[in-house]
Amino acid sequence: MFEAAELGRKVGREEFDAVAPQLRTELLELQQRLRAADFPVIIIFAGVDGAGKNETVNLLNEWMDPRWIVTRAYGAPSDEERERPEYWRYWRDLPAKGKLGLFLSSWYHRPVLNRAQGNITVAEMDEELDRIVHFEQTLSDEGALIIKFWMHLSEKAQKKRLKKLEEDPLTAWQVSETDWKHWKMYDKFIAAAERVIRHSSKSHALWHIVEGADARYRTSVVLNTVKDAILRHLESRELAKKIVAEMKKPAKGKKVEKPKLLTAQPSILSSLDMTQAVEGDDYNRQLQEQRGRLSQLHRKAKEKGVSTVLVFEGWDAAGKGGTIRRLTSALNARDSQVIPIAAPTEEERAQHYLWRFWRHLSRSGRVTIFDRSWYGRVLVERVEGFCSEEAWQRAYGEINDLEEQMTQAGTVVCKFWLHITSEEQLARFEQRGQIEYKKWKLTDEDWRNREKWGDYEAAVNDMVEKTSTRTAPWTLIEANNKPFARVKVLTTVCDALEAALKKRK
Amino acid sequence: MFEAAELGRKVGREEFDAVAPQLRTELLELQQRLRAADFPVIIIFAGVDGAGKNETVNLLNEWMDPRWIVTRAYGAPSDEERERPEYWRYWRDLPAKGKLGLFLSSWYHRPVLNRAQGNITVAEMDEELDRIVHFEQTLSDEGALIIKFWMHLSEKAQKKRLKKLEEDPLTAWQVSETDWKHWKMYDKFIAAAERVIRHSSKSHALWHIVEGADARYRTSVVLNTVKDAILRHLESRELAKKIVAEMKKPAKGKKVEKPKLLTAQPSILSSLDMTQAVEGDDYNRQLQEQRGRLSQLHRKAKEKGVSTVLVFEGWDAAGKGGTIRRLTSALNARDSQVIPIAAPTEEERAQHYLWRFWRHLSRSGRVTIFDRSWYGRVLVERVEGFCSEEAWQRAYGEINDLEEQMTQAGTVVCKFWLHITSEEQLARFEQRGQIEYKKWKLTDEDWRNREKWGDYEAAVNDMVEKTSTRTAPWTLIEANNKPFARVKVLTTVCDALEAALKKRK
Repeated sequence: MFEAAELGRKVGREEFDAVAPQLRTELLELQQRLRAADFPVIIIFAGVDGAGKNETVNLLNEWMDPRWIVTRAYGAPSDEERERPEYWRYWRDLPAKGKLGLFLSSWYHRPVLNRAQGNITVAEMDEELDRIVHFEQTLSDEGALIIKFWMHLSEKAQKKRLKKLEEDPLTAWQVSETDWKHWKMYDKFIAAAERVIRHSSKSHALWHIVEGADARYRTSVVLNTVKDAILRHLESRELAKKIVAEMKKPAKGKKVEKPKLLTAQPSILSSLDMTQAVEGDDYNRQLQEQRGRLSQLHRKAKEKGVSTVLVFEGWDAAGKGGTIRRLTSALNARDSQVIPIAAPTEEERAQHYLWRFWRHLSRSGRVTIFDRSWYGRVLVERVEGFCSEEAWQRAYGEINDLEEQMTQAGTVVCKFWLHITSEEQLARFEQRGQIEYKKWKLTDEDWRNREKWGDYEAAVNDMVEKTSTRTAPWTLIEANNKPFARVKVLTTVCDALEAALKKRK
Repeated sequence: MFEAAELGRKVGREEFDAVAPQLRTELLELQQRLRAADFPVIIIFAGVDGAGKNETVNLLNEWMDPRWIVTRAYGAPSDEERERPEYWRYWRDLPAKGKLGLFLSSWYHRPVLNRAQGNITVAEMDEELDRIVHFEQTLSDEGALIIKFWMHLSEKAQKKRLKKLEEDPLTAWQVSETDWKHWKMYDKFIAAAERVIRHSSKSHALWHIVEGADARYRTSVVLNTVKDAILRHLESRELAKKIVAEMKKPAKGKKVEKPKLLTAQPSILSSLDMTQAVEGDDYNRQLQEQRGRLSQLHRKAKEKGVSTVLVFEGWDAAGKGGTIRRLTSALNARDSQVIPIAAPTEEERAQHYLWRFWRHLSRSGRVTIFDRSWYGRVLVERVEGFCSEEAWQRAYGEINDLEEQMTQAGTVVCKFWLHITSEEQLARFEQRGQIEYKKWKLTDEDWRNREKWGDYEAAVNDMVEKTSTRTAPWTLIEANNKPFARVKVLTTVCDALEAALKKRK
């Protein structure tokens, strides 16, 4: 695999100097064009030590406008990072649309090194690669351009290069003992690299193997590859927009309607017993009991570093706010937060749609309550046509991945759909319209959403079917009776926390 | 995940009978349209025993034209199948373009069951799922429509269903002890199923969970889903064709040319020492020696069931035929075969481009020699523009997968590129033109290919870079001197076989 990167390819100084100014101008112009684009560019530099990864990143920062470039290198994870799902640190550093992200010692670093050192088995490395492939797929599905460079040196060339750096007092500091330790396991490193490149070279995120011995040659390859890839991606995104526009046309004309005998079927919501209620003293007693329980469990979870993520979705006026308040008043405000999800901010719109949820994940031992959530994509965005069918169909898998990363990091995930009947909603809307201090809560949008009750019901049904998993289940809450709903939510959260803490013993 | 499939959905007889004739006509018409299409339809039926998998497959065969339907169910692998890579049996049964393939107990069967029975760990199941996802991706990348149904019953409903079948003397035979054994591990089965569905539900191969308790309901869902999916796929393929046509336009207009300082670089072929030669007696001695060695190793490999696959690629007139003859004459003709790869047959053109290679894989202990191979896609098809850039870029990964499946099944894979210099080729062409019995070997195409020497050289370079792996390496053969080339090929094959046999001890 690396034979073709050990041929001694070279570019002479004169040759290079003749084309460099032109190339540099082209790159700068391209960067300006990119700023208006609807995708970020993610460039990975990996490979053999001494093959010019750092130098190339420095050159890119020098030749291009560094204001639109994010450069990141990852060492051992910080406390902050260790207490969250592994990919949190990569998510938070992703470049926004229109920007370039240059990544050194990226998500590929640890799998390759751990395998070379024999810390993990081939199967474990493959698992890690799977996560990487998913991650890159998710980014690319939303439009990101991903370019990956493997900078290569033969074993002999690496030795020569390290020696040369050591001999020059100006560069000697660049060579550490670690570099020589890595050199000694060259063979194992290369074997791991081969597997990584093979298994993660996908058409949406190709690896480019670059012979790293000659600085002018490797620079020429990297810069030209970057230039071509961005140009092509700009063109293909423009074409894609045309296609999407065209695809919408026939869909509107002759939309396949599901036959009545299928749409008239009961949904998972219709199977709920909506008459369930808790009254008066019973309510107060149960509420106090569960709140006391939650308070204790919350303290224990903090001690043991068990995080909790609670997701609230439901019909307008189903009582999400009131339920959440009953929860938070039993929690320590320092160790819990409520994240209300409304329209994304400008900064958030410039990122992958999941980015704004990743950024809010708390450190270990905390409770994070999402008042509406990432499920917006398969609910309102689906029903209102804010994203393509392809996008919301894909979202089920992306959401499952997101939640799996949370649960794998030890987080307890509970998801609640607060259900009320259509009649109950109407009654609550009308009541709101009559009470002065509640009027602001009722908007035209609420009435419009109400008209799409059936579409939302179908969307909820699919959502539960596709994302209710053993580790992150949905709990459907019968919420016509508010006290009943509150007690059921509290009890469910306590049960889940208790079970998780038992496992930790 | 399965809650929504336990709601007791039903379709009444009258309702069903009212729409059935229309649906049936539509399906038949669609099948006729499909016959002219450029893709196959692959439908998977999996799920709980008793949820109507068989009945649905029977109904599809009854309602549609069975001449264009392939139905397959897989039990324990046969001798024939066990001696080949695991997916060989699925590859050979794939429906041709324009046909439907209905698969019961498909590639999903063993992973789910093995996991439910605790025979494999979660990690091992995930590995298997990876292979499945790759397999389906490969098929879908070439256009196949894949529809997957998970037929569900609750634990209680399954029990009821099995009891009912048992009570009727006409259906009692359908219920075996195995069915009851499976029912007893219902929970484990469902847990495994959840993971399988989550990890293998991709936008190109979605799972549809179907409530299986009511026959008319599940039939309605399956038939309508199949109908809609085929309709949509037909439309999107037509659109895709338009897009491809449009994409070719700008590419021709302003193709990005690689700068000279990169294209003028040495290729992996230019690094070969083409003066190497073996002469006269030396040749005869070495040839006899290696042929004797091969003959012995071949017998041992047969005994131990170690298969060998040899791939020959190279320039026109590089001497592939002569080299292969030196090999085969040392092998037992019963246990070896040469597969010359020319233009695909009509039957082969109706399948995935890798299908025609899968079909030729031999049983264990045999030697299969491919005179040209699956590498055609990244050589001639790339250079001549017979397939899109996207297709040949993707092919490197597909080919690595194919070869990995071979090596994982214990097959020794050696790949040879027979290299001659451009001058040597010219001399051989001219010589051929002068010898009467060799004239037929020289065609206009040979001269045309020669004009594209540089393009082929770049393609060979990329091919070696991307597909020379530790388990299936390329060996470049300096073939200006025919004796040298023959001895080097023989020695390489013998060394590889010897190493593999040593491992088997």
